Amino acid sequence: MKSSIKVGFIGFGTVATGAVKILTEQKGLIRRRLGCPIEIVQIADLDVKRSRGVSLPKGVLTTDAMKVVRHPEIDIVVELIGGYDPARQFLLEAIRRGKQVVTANKALLAAHGEEIFRAAVERGVDVGFEGSVGGGIPIIHAIKEGLAAEKIAAIYGIVNGTCNYILTKMTDEGKKFSEVLTEAQRLGYAEADPTLDIGGADSAHKLAILTCLAFGTAVPLKEIYTEGVDKVTPLDIAFAEEFGCKIKLLAIAKAADGEIEARVHPTMIPKEYLLSRVAGVHNAVYLVGEAIGEALFYGRGAGSLPTGSAVVSDLIDISRNILKGANGRVPPASFLPEARPALRIKQMDEIESLYYLRFMAEDRPGVLSKISGVLGKHRISISSVIQQGRKAGGNVPLVMMTHRAKERDVQEALSKINRMDYVSEPTVLIRVEGEDE
Amino acid sequence: MKSSIKVGFIGFGTVATGAVKILTEQKGLIRRRLGCPIEIVQIADLDVKRSRGVSLPKGVLTTDAMKVVRHPEIDIVVELIGGYDPARQFLLEAIRRGKQVVTANKALLAAHGEEIFRAAVERGVDVGFEGSVGGGIPIIHAIKEGLAAEKIAAIYGIVNGTCNYILTKMTDEGKKFSEVLTEAQRLGYAEADPTLDIGGADSAHKLAILTCLAFGTAVPLKEIYTEGVDKVTPLDIAFAEEFGCKIKLLAIAKAADGEIEARVHPTMIPKEYLLSRVAGVHNAVYLVGEAIGEALFYGRGAGSLPTGSAVVSDLIDISRNILKGANGRVPPASFLPEARPALRIKQMDEIESLYYLRFMAEDRPGVLSKISGVLGKHRISISSVIQQGRKAGGNVPLVMMTHRAKERDVQEALSKINRMDYVSEPTVLIRVEGEDE
Repeated sequence: MKSSIKVGFIGFGTVATGAVKILTEQKGLIRRRLGCPIEIVQIADLDVKRSRGVSLPKGVLTTDAMKVVRHPEIDIVVELIGGYDPARQFLLEAIRRGKQVVTANKALLAAHGEEIFRAAVERGVDVGFEGSVGGGIPIIHAIKEGLAAEKIAAIYGIVNGTCNYILTKMTDEGKKFSEVLTEAQRLGYAEADPTLDIGGADSAHKLAILTCLAFGTAVPLKEIYTEGVDKVTPLDIAFAEEFGCKIKLLAIAKAADGEIEARVHPTMIPKEYLLSRVAGVHNAVYLVGEAIGEALFYGRGAGSLPTGSAVVSDLIDISRNILKGANGRVPPASFLPEARPALRIKQMDEIESLYYLRFMAEDRPGVLSKISGVLGKHRISISSVIQQGRKAGGNVPLVMMTHRAKERDVQEALSKINRMDYVSEPTVLIRVEGEDE
Repeated sequence: MKSSIKVGFIGFGTVATGAVKILTEQKGLIRRRLGCPIEIVQIADLDVKRSRGVSLPKGVLTTDAMKVVRHPEIDIVVELIGGYDPARQFLLEAIRRGKQVVTANKALLAAHGEEIFRAAVERGVDVGFEGSVGGGIPIIHAIKEGLAAEKIAAIYGIVNGTCNYILTKMTDEGKKFSEVLTEAQRLGYAEADPTLDIGGADSAHKLAILTCLAFGTAVPLKEIYTEGVDKVTPLDIAFAEEFGCKIKLLAIAKAADGEIEARVHPTMIPKEYLLSRVAGVHNAVYLVGEAIGEALFYGRGAGSLPTGSAVVSDLIDISRNILKGANGRVPPASFLPEARPALRIKQMDEIESLYYLRFMAEDRPGVLSKISGVLGKHRISISSVIQQGRKAGGNVPLVMMTHRAKERDVQEALSKINRMDYVSEPTVLIRVEGEDE
């Protein structure tokens, strides 16, 4: 039996600092659960001067990442530098050398997960990535192990804390997107360049990972329809309220009849849904499974300690395998590589949904009938209408909630309606999840 | 490599039927995740005639449970008969014979878990019990694996669907306990003899299991203070509402400063808390951890398929260990047996809480001052008071919410107040979780 497990970190930023703190402060707990200590042998970062509030033995820090990858004693290499390259090369080289690896790099896994997983399976090593989705929520373990018997039908995730913080603030305080974004940046809840978050790409990365684990089919990022939160307005949030709904940025994936769909966009959901109650920077993943019905996993989506905890749980998991010579006991993609089902990926225009449509139209007789006429011709039927705020000669919002309709029909109808002269602005479309009443 | 994993069931009731259905219907999925099939070799039940809606090969059913335990080919024995004995003997005998075991028997684990875990560790076999707490919620795996790095500080669980259904109905429809119980029995949400559920014992069993996993210390059942839902009245639910709270039956465990407390009782919680939103037969476990902050796990708490799914996930987990020769890789109690911390268990009168107190007192001047005087003498300070419904010469409810106080002080004060002649009924006490404002 090994007397300790030796790990090396590449990257010593926020998450690595959290993981190192936990490894140091919970040394006793880890030993009592694992049976031996996890020892930090080497940490590589370009900045080895800055204090991270943790004390490390001399010689642990290095600026050379390859020292970690090549270190003969290191059992597990933890990659926490983010981005595609050189993170990808470091992981592949570590795997090639027979090292177990851990990463929280969702962008990398979404784009190159297949390559990394394949290399790991061939070499018989483990890839831990609990930290890549939902920080302190052990959702990766849940899908791969706790729900291993479950045929999952759908995933609805609030997986980006920045977007959820912004939408929560906009909802609670009636503020505009740009105003709340500035505030979020000041508080450190949004990056200086928030594009990846607010544009939805970060959520799409995480959805790609969850979809792969839940359904066994990798969905290329470009096949995930992605819309961010930057176009959500206080007006639409207020109308959502009138329909008893909240607007959340949801990462949605569904599987049925040999096909899957995966998409990220602002979504109206009834305010009684638990997902509606997930506020601020919190994350949650709601799963629908054939046997379990539904389950929700909620917690902090990011941050040094929550994500650090996920990284250390991977280290413990993999260490348990090392101690038993059992690496590779769970396939990284949750299905055996040779047995991955190949589900057809639906294009966005094939999906069906309920829709919230906000037209900005001239306030004169006949407009409602013309718009609903075009919708009807495109097989879209309306479940309710709100028309408010008369303005002499001006434009007013005309809001409709549809029954279940096809995206293609809706898009075609809107492109016609948007060209009409009594419509002053492009129509706002927000997809709605809920019962079709 | 083994070409299949062979399992035998003892007990063919609701949960076993769910598990057998999943093993049959999800054969393909399980094979794609595990790499080989899980084969049902033998099922023992006293009733082998009744149709369970699943077709089984000839010779699988038997009335002799020991045939399962002794079967030379069976790798994993699943015990689903419930109760203490003979379930305990079957499990211990299966372990003695080197078989892996799975059970969903929370009563047995709460009372004899230590004995079963010790036997399994000595023999190097696994004990799966994901189905014992929170049916379709993979909370056992979450604590043992996904949160392995986490120093857990507190657990708040809604772990009994029957009680939650009853409280939800009482809250939504203003009905009395007895009325809703009858309804729940008619709908199959409550047993003909509902004592274990409504008296809180079932929740205490589950709390004993969670506490052992989270803190490493086994809490004997008799040390878990347990109060059921049968004394909750529509009047107190209405007052809770006025304080912005709901009443839930919570299983609570906390660890701090080398001590733990574990208790089950109706609890008022602010209605904004996610736990407040857990309605009907659903269950949820809210965890507070040092690094992750907080996490919530929500889903169906019971039922043939949800709990069946948990049993099959244990089968897959243990099968993965069998295929790698890695049984025993995670200690059943989540801590290594020799490294279990021994935390002191607090007695109920040592705990501190906020309290809701409803006095039934004569509606005459001076009563409020007398009652609050006694409370004050016992170091209990009041954060708010509601006095309503004047009745000439009659008794009226006088409701108080306290600041944080000691259980011992509160009990002493109430025993004095209850003896006073202007108090007509024993005072109702409901503990409150929330911020002390």
